Amino acid sequence: MTTPAFRGVIPPVLTPLDASGAFDETAFERLVERLIAGGVHGLFVLGSSGEVAFLSDDERTRVLEASVRVAAGRVPVIAGVNEMTPARVIGQVRLAEAAGVDAIVATAPYYARPSAAEVETHFRTIAAATSLPLFAYDVPVRVHSKLDHAMLVRLGVEGVLAGVKDSSGDDVAFRRLVMANRAAGSPLALFTGHEVVVDGALLAGADGVVPGLGNVDPGRYVQLFDAAGAADWVRVRELQDEVAELFEIVFQANGVSGEAAGLGAFKTALAHLGVISSNRMSQPVPSLEGDTVARITAIVDRAGLSA
Amino acid sequence: MTTPAFRGVIPPVLTPLDASGAFDETAFERLVERLIAGGVHGLFVLGSSGEVAFLSDDERTRVLEASVRVAAGRVPVIAGVNEMTPARVIGQVRLAEAAGVDAIVATAPYYARPSAAEVETHFRTIAAATSLPLFAYDVPVRVHSKLDHAMLVRLGVEGVLAGVKDSSGDDVAFRRLVMANRAAGSPLALFTGHEVVVDGALLAGADGVVPGLGNVDPGRYVQLFDAAGAADWVRVRELQDEVAELFEIVFQANGVSGEAAGLGAFKTALAHLGVISSNRMSQPVPSLEGDTVARITAIVDRAGLSA
Amino acid sequence: MTTPAFRGVIPPVLTPLDASGAFDETAFERLVERLIAGGVHGLFVLGSSGEVAFLSDDERTRVLEASVRVAAGRVPVIAGVNEMTPARVIGQVRLAEAAGVDAIVATAPYYARPSAAEVETHFRTIAAATSLPLFAYDVPVRVHSKLDHAMLVRLGVEGVLAGVKDSSGDDVAFRRLVMANRAAGSPLALFTGHEVVVDGALLAGADGVVPGLGNVDPGRYVQLFDAAGAADWVRVRELQDEVAELFEIVFQANGVSGEAAGLGAFKTALAHLGVISSNRMSQPVPSLEGDTVARITAIVDRAGLSA
Amino acid sequence: MTTPAFRGVIPPVLTPLDASGAFDETAFERLVERLIAGGVHGLFVLGSSGEVAFLSDDERTRVLEASVRVAAGRVPVIAGVNEMTPARVIGQVRLAEAAGVDAIVATAPYYARPSAAEVETHFRTIAAATSLPLFAYDVPVRVHSKLDHAMLVRLGVEGVLAGVKDSSGDDVAFRRLVMANRAAGSPLALFTGHEVVVDGALLAGADGVVPGLGNVDPGRYVQLFDAAGAADWVRVRELQDEVAELFEIVFQANGVSGEAAGLGAFKTALAHLGVISSNRMSQPVPSLEGDTVARITAIVDRAGLSA
Repeated sequence: MTTPAFRGVIPPVLTPLDASGAFDETAFERLVERLIAGGVHGLFVLGSSGEVAFLSDDERTRVLEASVRVAAGRVPVIAGVNEMTPARVIGQVRLAEAAGVDAIVATAPYYARPSAAEVETHFRTIAAATSLPLFAYDVPVRVHSKLDHAMLVRLGVEGVLAGVKDSSGDDVAFRRLVMANRAAGSPLALFTGHEVVVDGALLAGADGVVPGLGNVDPGRYVQLFDAAGAADWVRVRELQDEVAELFEIVFQANGVSGEAAGLGAFKTALAHLGVISSNRMSQPVPSLEGDTVARITAIVDRAGLSA
Repeated sequence: MTTPAFRGVIPPVLTPLDASGAFDETAFERLVERLIAGGVHGLFVLGSSGEVAFLSDDERTRVLEASVRVAAGRVPVIAGVNEMTPARVIGQVRLAEAAGVDAIVATAPYYARPSAAEVETHFRTIAAATSLPLFAYDVPVRVHSKLDHAMLVRLGVEGVLAGVKDSSGDDVAFRRLVMANRAAGSPLALFTGHEVVVDGALLAGADGVVPGLGNVDPGRYVQLFDAAGAADWVRVRELQDEVAELFEIVFQANGVSGEAAGLGAFKTALAHLGVISSNRMSQPVPSLEGDTVARITAIVDRAGLSA
Repeated sequence: MTTPAFRGVIPPVLTPLDASGAFDETAFERLVERLIAGGVHGLFVLGSSGEVAFLSDDERTRVLEASVRVAAGRVPVIAGVNEMTPARVIGQVRLAEAAGVDAIVATAPYYARPSAAEVETHFRTIAAATSLPLFAYDVPVRVHSKLDHAMLVRLGVEGVLAGVKDSSGDDVAFRRLVMANRAAGSPLALFTGHEVVVDGALLAGADGVVPGLGNVDPGRYVQLFDAAGAADWVRVRELQDEVAELFEIVFQANGVSGEAAGLGAFKTALAHLGVISSNRMSQPVPSLEGDTVARITAIVDRAGLSA
Repeated sequence: MTTPAFRGVIPPVLTPLDASGAFDETAFERLVERLIAGGVHGLFVLGSSGEVAFLSDDERTRVLEASVRVAAGRVPVIAGVNEMTPARVIGQVRLAEAAGVDAIVATAPYYARPSAAEVETHFRTIAAATSLPLFAYDVPVRVHSKLDHAMLVRLGVEGVLAGVKDSSGDDVAFRRLVMANRAAGSPLALFTGHEVVVDGALLAGADGVVPGLGNVDPGRYVQLFDAAGAADWVRVRELQDEVAELFEIVFQANGVSGEAAGLGAFKTALAHLGVISSNRMSQPVPSLEGDTVARITAIVDRAGLSA
């Protein structure tokens, strides 16, 4: 088996905004420094959790440049190249290359409604246009198609893909992907994107995790990953239960979108801890307010977190 | 009641590519001239049928500029401003404004998963950023949310929206939209995007149609619209049946995406008629070949179309 | 072309309950007599609108027997045989046969997740077990698969199916079904189940309509059908608009199921008109109350209906 | 914490048919004896894997009676009471009670489209009609609604529900259910229905598993459960990988329904092992044949199973 170059806890870094809605680079720097101090193994910027869908290309460029500058080679920077089809994704790849990131992450086409063969061509077309390692991001809840595990392993064996971030919520398929990848010599680094089932994913053989909640509590995720590495599964389970309790912050808002509730909760927690200056969200997503904020900060306080 | 500024047959103009995959401006000019000669009441460029999802911003700009140049004021040019969230849509609006189009069309957010309130804010944010008339494009099969008819009429009354292109496939909801719009003084121009149910939509009170098949047979759609205007519903039905038979071209391909089958059929028909030079599709969509092409051209020949 | 044995307005008859939740045969008799007086061309009992899903086999038998007794040969009685797979549907067919109905209606399998071939076998198996004419009920919102139009016409040509009740909400597919059926010699009688698009369906060539709202206003639907027969499409449209306004009663309840809102509205309207004695729904569906009832009865009053 | 009365490996027992399609009671007896010899902790009969959807009430009764007779008190018998709404489910409960089973399992309503409140009333209505312990079966892929974890725990605390069989494929929601149940004093026995993620489910705190594949390899599931009880997670993982390899039998058929592929594979494996006499499936599901059978038996042989 090969040792994947990318493994461990790689949080999808939030994009802090100031009260006017502009990218808050100072807050971003504090956030990234806290993640690195917490022991994370990489940074995934411009993911769904980074509000990539809501940022203009200029804003995306500023986030990319800030990421590379602050990381300063201490941990790899992996960048989302988020667009709907190959030609447009490659436009995003150029922004990422110019900023000097270490790897890129692309979804299947969306808005378009591709066949399975077209999805495969999509990844091949992107990979052929860059020398950066390419991860596939499996997120059917957003792009409305599921990536086939046999296709993923085939592209891994051929060197088209370096890894997969699985946010499909389909644990049966993820287990099949892990097994097929192992049988093929483990060409792919496999990450789960689900915060509260990391224990099971690591037990099944995942190489790492991309937890949105890792923005708020990077340290516990690193401990969890290390405990799994030491095969101390009882400790893994304890840590998983602890972060799962903290994850309840994303279920406190009612009647708003998933972005408003989930990312809004992460931002609210980090603003409460003083890591970022505002829980402001991008247009058209409302920022959390009032009782919802109070319920979230109470959960954060119970978890004993500090900046 | 007000008379809507936009009405009639406004086909979603295809984007012809040459054999290398580049935008074929000469073919585009032939296509547009044939549409105008066929009597269409406007041009909708950079829609889903225009492969907007697959075009880079540079390619989109070239299509916009060619559209305005060729139309030359004879019919209005309505442009899709297709991106996933308000900030990015507004980037597209700037391209459309620079080219000099007459109106723009935006979908609900996608990739993002907005609440109903966020969808409304999305349209308000776009409209506030431009003086161009804004149409809402209701296409849940691509963006995975349905536009609420009461919201649409409310935005029409307030002057935020000028009209709606309905490709929701929900004829019950469309009827409710027509009735609510009429009760509010008809602030919205209402178009159906479904080729084979135009008769029913016009009977219900639609202001026009945006038929992909109108690229192939603009004349019959114009006759159909005129017959409806003359309340000659028996003739409307006959014409609808004729275009419905032609529409079978989109069902000839098997095992490919909807884009490959549907848009590929339109391009194949137009290449057969000599209007465009190639049925080439954008990456990663395969172009139709072999028996499929033969079945499509046979249907086109039966319909007695000419360039 | 053959003349279908079944055509016209065939409402899906509600199943009135008394205040204790038991089948109210007296109210059912009043309801059916009012439908026949309104000129309907048949009765469809034990459909979704008849709350068939909520009735035990004993209750279903009582409804079947009452239907045949009250109809007394004046109009045909068509009965839903609603179960999840062939063996269980055939059990329901035996109940319908024993009661003496004139035709039966079956959906695709549900709970089970059949392939297209299994759906076809399903209908063949049912038809082989009875001499009653069999209609296919296309209702993907309940059974989660769509019936293929080519399969339906094939079974029509072979004499397996006598007709189709289309509640798919897919007007493009319905148009294709109408055209394919006509090309095959019209073996199938084609009905739409959507109350507010009957004008378009008849213009397209439907043989009739199965409108839940026909329980409340049978007369207008019969007028609409007759106007279509006379090719008076302007009058058809007027009548369609009138029933569409009345149909707003189904959108008055908030936060309840479709059954509670829709069937509850029909029952509330009929109780207000004195046709049935109670708007009581089957367990676990709540009956409409308070302001919702007031809004519904106001719409009914505006429509000028009487018992 | 309470000790749940139901825990461990409780396979959803297949319903063997003979070559004519009739219930094969002799094969059923062999199957059940082999399961008990394999150490299973209970039998779940008339589940989806038992083809309950395809059996008439008479056939269901024969399965129930055979189950109780063969189990003879050695392990508890839990019976599916599978119907679409409360009144009809209670009809099934009477069959189960008459046969003498130990507990029953019901889904949310289907075909009907209930609100969350109606789902809760549904379970309350069923529980009020029987003294048997009631399990909720969460299977959105069949019934098209997901059971809310807070509702489930509430009904557990009130004594309405004894447990949950989770086949939702939503591991995040299952983790939240486990945590909420534990916080409430563990009133519910929690089972996962997914064969290849049992390790993660047990690590998270599940009380047991209902694996369809347990029909084929009961012994390894019992070993896996015991290893988890001994906190030997390395061994749990090894066993999970072994059964996951065997589970590939369900992915060998192409172009057929999930029932045909999955249950067909289990039956094919058991027929190959000589436990049952035929891999025959219920109408309209085709039995597996030819190369598919060969691929399945090769996988079974590699796993080293015996009757």
